Amino acid sequence: MNYQKISIPAVNQEMRHKVNHYINTLTKPRGSLGRLEDLAIELAEMKNSAFPKVTPAGILVFAADHGIVAEGVSAYPQAVTEQMVRNFLNGGAAINVFSKQIGAMLKIIDIGVAAEIEHQELVNEKVRYGTANFLHEDAMSREEAEQAIHIGYVQGVNMIRQGAESLIVGEMGIGNTTTSSTILAVLSNKNINCLIGYGTGISCEQLLHKERVIEQALINRKPSSSDPIDILAKVGGLEIAGMAGAMLAAAENRVPILVDGFICTTAALIAKLISKRVSDYIVLTHQSIEPGHGTAINLLGKNPMIDLGLRLGEGTGAAIAFPIIQSATLMLSEMATFTSAGISDKTKESEVRV
Amino acid sequence: MNYQKISIPAVNQEMRHKVNHYINTLTKPRGSLGRLEDLAIELAEMKNSAFPKVTPAGILVFAADHGIVAEGVSAYPQAVTEQMVRNFLNGGAAINVFSKQIGAMLKIIDIGVAAEIEHQELVNEKVRYGTANFLHEDAMSREEAEQAIHIGYVQGVNMIRQGAESLIVGEMGIGNTTTSSTILAVLSNKNINCLIGYGTGISCEQLLHKERVIEQALINRKPSSSDPIDILAKVGGLEIAGMAGAMLAAAENRVPILVDGFICTTAALIAKLISKRVSDYIVLTHQSIEPGHGTAINLLGKNPMIDLGLRLGEGTGAAIAFPIIQSATLMLSEMATFTSAGISDKTKESEVRV
Repeated sequence: MNYQKISIPAVNQEMRHKVNHYINTLTKPRGSLGRLEDLAIELAEMKNSAFPKVTPAGILVFAADHGIVAEGVSAYPQAVTEQMVRNFLNGGAAINVFSKQIGAMLKIIDIGVAAEIEHQELVNEKVRYGTANFLHEDAMSREEAEQAIHIGYVQGVNMIRQGAESLIVGEMGIGNTTTSSTILAVLSNKNINCLIGYGTGISCEQLLHKERVIEQALINRKPSSSDPIDILAKVGGLEIAGMAGAMLAAAENRVPILVDGFICTTAALIAKLISKRVSDYIVLTHQSIEPGHGTAINLLGKNPMIDLGLRLGEGTGAAIAFPIIQSATLMLSEMATFTSAGISDKTKESEVRV
Repeated sequence: MNYQKISIPAVNQEMRHKVNHYINTLTKPRGSLGRLEDLAIELAEMKNSAFPKVTPAGILVFAADHGIVAEGVSAYPQAVTEQMVRNFLNGGAAINVFSKQIGAMLKIIDIGVAAEIEHQELVNEKVRYGTANFLHEDAMSREEAEQAIHIGYVQGVNMIRQGAESLIVGEMGIGNTTTSSTILAVLSNKNINCLIGYGTGISCEQLLHKERVIEQALINRKPSSSDPIDILAKVGGLEIAGMAGAMLAAAENRVPILVDGFICTTAALIAKLISKRVSDYIVLTHQSIEPGHGTAINLLGKNPMIDLGLRLGEGTGAAIAFPIIQSATLMLSEMATFTSAGISDKTKESEVRV
């Protein structure tokens, strides 16, 4: 297995016509299920199946630390990354709750937490003990960035082999909104103050500081906007690399990727830079309240399904939106057609039974 | 039991402070679950419980016919109401699929279908064989309108006695967007062309015709905007009266009402006119694409949770949105707190364990 050699299949566009026609035979006014009908068609194209399944979902949560927190860019101390990983393993975090609600398979991967964590449920794939502080030095080496992508890719493949019909990719990493905003500044060439937000809850003064740190870091590091490995090596982060790798695995296997909020969308942009076609397999589940998300969404070229003002991460928004995606598939597989139900279709007056 | 004598309790506003404080102890950044946090608080206030439950949901679908369809206002023939009721009873309609998905209890009530339907699963509470054509005569008598509200009320009470922790109220009735637009014109005093839409899918010419029919009917009937019984008696419909009655029962019993789209919101406005406090128990689940829905929403004074471009009815939008409401309750009941998980809360530096 090697993510660099992957070949992502094209979606089956013939499925679009076929499923669209079938939806118009279901016992409801045409078009009346709105976005659900579009979703059903997109999923059918991705999975090359007229009756696509998305259950069970697989959820991969990648956790890693960020050296940049030494600059005071986050509301929480770095130790919270480790503490939250323990919370995931004990089942108490938001992603545990929503994962259980939707009957998903959940895996937590330590891809770079700056602490030792031993737990039989934890996938230990630590590349290093957090990234370096990218204000002063590269976050990691190119080899480490590639290793992190590869780890994510292998985790994605494993989750699919275990039966995941759709993939949610989440993250935990104190400081990772700073990393994501920095990546997004490179990719979008936009002014950083349009791309940063309060993250887990910093003050207005801290926000200005965060802006200055990122501006200086970009001057110091000069990542190349066309080289995803260069971006990851220079500003991080390990969990973002892992998420991108997992998305590549899903797309290669025609498994829909249910993208969460700001950090996840940034990881999706990295994956797209590695292999453009990955975006054909993405469903953008929600609009985050994090200010940079709009720019990330535009670069990805997808419309978010819902907007609930979320900014938690961990993959929670995708898990919360998941039942709507499931509804779209159940519409296809379980609803009666006008013919099977013996109902008058306005377009076929001959079938009216009065 | 008598809906006219109901007393709807006030929501418990002390619960707001209590639950808001508790949410801030959960292991996530403050406010990061956005609308879910607001929902959790609203549900706690309604149910007078710090850990409100919404499962299982009860779904009541009221079916009735509308004499106004004789004027050619609908894309489908009247017979489709009966045919769709049979589809509900056979499990093939969209509401069956989504009801099953969310594990709800579903009941179909014939409150005025213009045909004889015998089925052991059907609740037969037919008030009359469809309303009269309200262009030419009153849709029904005041007594029939009150009877229909009472039937809905009793069905609501029964569903709650059977264990429903939340109530979804749906409808089936060819022609009922015309009835709803007419009711809304009375309640909002807005020009009818801002309040009508393509319903199940009529042409532009039919839309202009629908507008003229409603305008003339309002001149002929002159319903009183302050008398909900007068409105129902003069323009209908039986299922809308039943839905309003069921909502009154839910509010009386502190059971959250998950309001669906255009017709359901119109029924909620009738219920609110009967007893103002009913709106304190309403969660507006989605924004319909039906043009009049915006006006109905403003009159109800609620914000829709999601917008998926739906216009199907049957209660489907509420059922599709239901898992999000369930997520809000599970956040409260299943997430760990900072203290229980031993995690550093930024607001309590003394608890940091590094």
